[in-house]
Amino acid sequence: MGKGITKRSVDYSAWYNELVKKADLAENSAVRGCMVIKPHGYAIWENMQAVLDKKFKETGHYNAYFPIFIPKSYFSKEASHVEGFAKECAVVTHYRLKNDPNGEGVIVDPDAKLEEELIVRPTSETLIWDSYKKWIQSYRDLPILLNQWANVVRWEMRTRLFLRTAEFLWQEGHTAHATQKEAEEEALQMMHVYADFVENYMAVPVLRGVKTESERFAGALETYCIEALMQDGKALQAGTSHFLGQNFAKAFDVKFADKSGKLDYVWGTSWGVSTRLMGALIMAHSDDEGLVLPPKLAPTQVVIIPIFRSEEELVAISKVADVVVKELRTKDITVKFDKRDTHKPGWKFAEYEQKGIPVRIAIGPRDLESNQVEVARRDTKEKNTYSMNELSSTIAELLETIQTDMFKKASQFRADKTTIVNSYDEFKSVLEEKGGFIYAHWDGTSETEEQIKNETKATIRLIPLEGNKEGGKCIITGNPSTGRVIFAKAY
Amino acid sequence: MGKGITKRSVDYSAWYNELVKKADLAENSAVRGCMVIKPHGYAIWENMQAVLDKKFKETGHYNAYFPIFIPKSYFSKEASHVEGFAKECAVVTHYRLKNDPNGEGVIVDPDAKLEEELIVRPTSETLIWDSYKKWIQSYRDLPILLNQWANVVRWEMRTRLFLRTAEFLWQEGHTAHATQKEAEEEALQMMHVYADFVENYMAVPVLRGVKTESERFAGALETYCIEALMQDGKALQAGTSHFLGQNFAKAFDVKFADKSGKLDYVWGTSWGVSTRLMGALIMAHSDDEGLVLPPKLAPTQVVIIPIFRSEEELVAISKVADVVVKELRTKDITVKFDKRDTHKPGWKFAEYEQKGIPVRIAIGPRDLESNQVEVARRDTKEKNTYSMNELSSTIAELLETIQTDMFKKASQFRADKTTIVNSYDEFKSVLEEKGGFIYAHWDGTSETEEQIKNETKATIRLIPLEGNKEGGKCIITGNPSTGRVIFAKAY
Repeated sequence: MGKGITKRSVDYSAWYNELVKKADLAENSAVRGCMVIKPHGYAIWENMQAVLDKKFKETGHYNAYFPIFIPKSYFSKEASHVEGFAKECAVVTHYRLKNDPNGEGVIVDPDAKLEEELIVRPTSETLIWDSYKKWIQSYRDLPILLNQWANVVRWEMRTRLFLRTAEFLWQEGHTAHATQKEAEEEALQMMHVYADFVENYMAVPVLRGVKTESERFAGALETYCIEALMQDGKALQAGTSHFLGQNFAKAFDVKFADKSGKLDYVWGTSWGVSTRLMGALIMAHSDDEGLVLPPKLAPTQVVIIPIFRSEEELVAISKVADVVVKELRTKDITVKFDKRDTHKPGWKFAEYEQKGIPVRIAIGPRDLESNQVEVARRDTKEKNTYSMNELSSTIAELLETIQTDMFKKASQFRADKTTIVNSYDEFKSVLEEKGGFIYAHWDGTSETEEQIKNETKATIRLIPLEGNKEGGKCIITGNPSTGRVIFAKAY
Repeated sequence: MGKGITKRSVDYSAWYNELVKKADLAENSAVRGCMVIKPHGYAIWENMQAVLDKKFKETGHYNAYFPIFIPKSYFSKEASHVEGFAKECAVVTHYRLKNDPNGEGVIVDPDAKLEEELIVRPTSETLIWDSYKKWIQSYRDLPILLNQWANVVRWEMRTRLFLRTAEFLWQEGHTAHATQKEAEEEALQMMHVYADFVENYMAVPVLRGVKTESERFAGALETYCIEALMQDGKALQAGTSHFLGQNFAKAFDVKFADKSGKLDYVWGTSWGVSTRLMGALIMAHSDDEGLVLPPKLAPTQVVIIPIFRSEEELVAISKVADVVVKELRTKDITVKFDKRDTHKPGWKFAEYEQKGIPVRIAIGPRDLESNQVEVARRDTKEKNTYSMNELSSTIAELLETIQTDMFKKASQFRADKTTIVNSYDEFKSVLEEKGGFIYAHWDGTSETEEQIKNETKATIRLIPLEGNKEGGKCIITGNPSTGRVIFAKAY
């Protein structure tokens, strides 16, 4: 602690990597590409999980758990899934170790080779639809609205903590419906659930829309997504929700009898968010001093630090602090009174600043006399002196203000970094000089999309769901466009 | 639904397997030995997790997350760990699939072979102590009190849903301490946390003690455990807590400087419970009709079933039922009003009986007139008619009574199935005819323990922590014993 972090303006990427470590969120493990999520990072993820899990249950979903392994042959069952999905997976080929006959630890037992290799799940559509085949016979069995919290593995070559790791934690929803309309509504609903969460809890504004065909999930007919903007002007996909049509039902032969007894394939959706959200949270708000957390997701919302020189002073301060702690807790505010004598107040200030604790209260001997305390906001670094009377109400309001202000600030940032362009030259210069979201006309072809991507590294982040429906001409081909789409460089 | 389950008295094992399926708790997947935990089963597990997680946090622990993969070489670092631990593991050898050149789906890409194989974690001591080496320098860094909720894989040859599966869900606590005393106290504390949970929430009485040397966790100096008794007279190990001494610290070179600057190895513990607890819960309480759940862990505590012949009757009943639902929810009772018209009341009765819902309320048109309802207890199948006035208080009390009664019944069963024996003949006949826990004198040697195991299949479940300390003579060798130990056949 105490040592600084590279400034964002100097090297954004180094800033991020150092911050993740300094704020004690995560670190790389001995296994390439797999991270260790440390207690502070995991506590934030737990808070995210709690909110999302509640929202899923409120919208009628149940949790379940499906195996971590998927038989290799399952991947080939849905043609576009196997074609489109990355083949970088962890493959289990053996099921036993044995002592090395040369006494050098353990070796893989060659006699214990699996007949069919197992893949550590990169996503679970195939295995789950295989189960749904057993569970679904009639319309009475529908809808099935399931979610699972799980770890998944995609063997990424270049990894970054939270943003892209070989193993990551996520939730994956998998639903089955009797009608196309119901499945489409489900996919759309979950996109909005994600958007509400990211905006109202993470305090990060998002754009909502659909992916172009080439950016769709392998096996989906439509991919709804939310996109957030990071402080370096790059976009980050924060969640996706897929309308799968009858693709997986056909691949796994999942049919149901409707009320009249007629058989039809089941309609499906899948949707997920992952520990990648941690990366979005960090990059949207944090500053050169460290992490900045929105109060609604902070594991500790308030820290109280005593300023003392003697044991008597600490005793006197503790008496007051203990009352404050108690009052804050009755308001469901999480608070920590850090009275360790192994570290100086300045060290503690820096530590909690790096860790993003939203509010810091410092109490010294003079504060006891004046019946006031100094309260510092992490987000703006403003300090104010507040009366001890009704301090808990003041703090409760302050936390709400911080939550709102963080969202406002991120929204203003996004507004400043959003540009409407009408030519490819303008597109390229905005992308180069300003970054952010660029609204531009596109002719709707994959070729044009691909050309722009190859030439500028910008991709179509989404086609907006509403608004921006005025016609125009594609910035590349001049062919007609029915509405602007949103481009950005992305994580 | 509706079809019966094999009676316990006819075939206990078939009863268990059928019950798990009929109660919709779990089923086998396409992957050998890996189960699908269905929503009803997972909801019970979630309730278990919530209680345990709270207890862990109250005792100062934090959650974290470590990778699912462990480099093969790590297993050899702690000698007794690699020797003692089963070598049936899932081994990842490759990291990529590719399209079969013959067009037959996908094959493992031979060019994507890992330099060092990765093992899907069977337990995480090795990887976590490798991290602790980086995290611990001085006494100021201690204690570290971490837990993780995770999936683990042990390639079991014969599997049974919940009781023994290749993949299972669990929590594993891993703590690091400056002193032997503190680590020992931690290990003991967590055994008591487990025992309190199993007794007060699962309503299953447990014995507490330590394992014999041969039954200890590989790498531990002492294994504390809790043992529960199932209805077929077999014991089930419900949780273990290991005092690891300095073994893993030595294997991974984890030293700390004490206040005087002197270096010493760190002391460790690890402790865990798993989805195996689901098996214990099922087998301790359930009957020939299906699952019996203790109210404190039931996902739905009360179900209300309307008895109606017309839409008007349903409307009238719903009006009353909605009030009851609301009142019960204000008392934090989980309640479901099942007014589906696709199933008859009798079908619903059977369904909720099989699923173990503790209390069933039936409301018919005549009940509305008499201002009374019929309330059925799942555990005893008693039915009573209660006034609608203050029904929620009556139900709240009833749920408490059921929780207490289930524990009493299981305790009485255990008492009836606990026998003190003084000779090997007596031992064998009790084991054969009655089963259960057998208290007997043992000379303390692994040879005697092994002989009894080979001849009778009974193992020493634990050496009690207190009581039973009167001396005696070993039932096999006649050599002196310092106190009876507890034998049983076990899952």
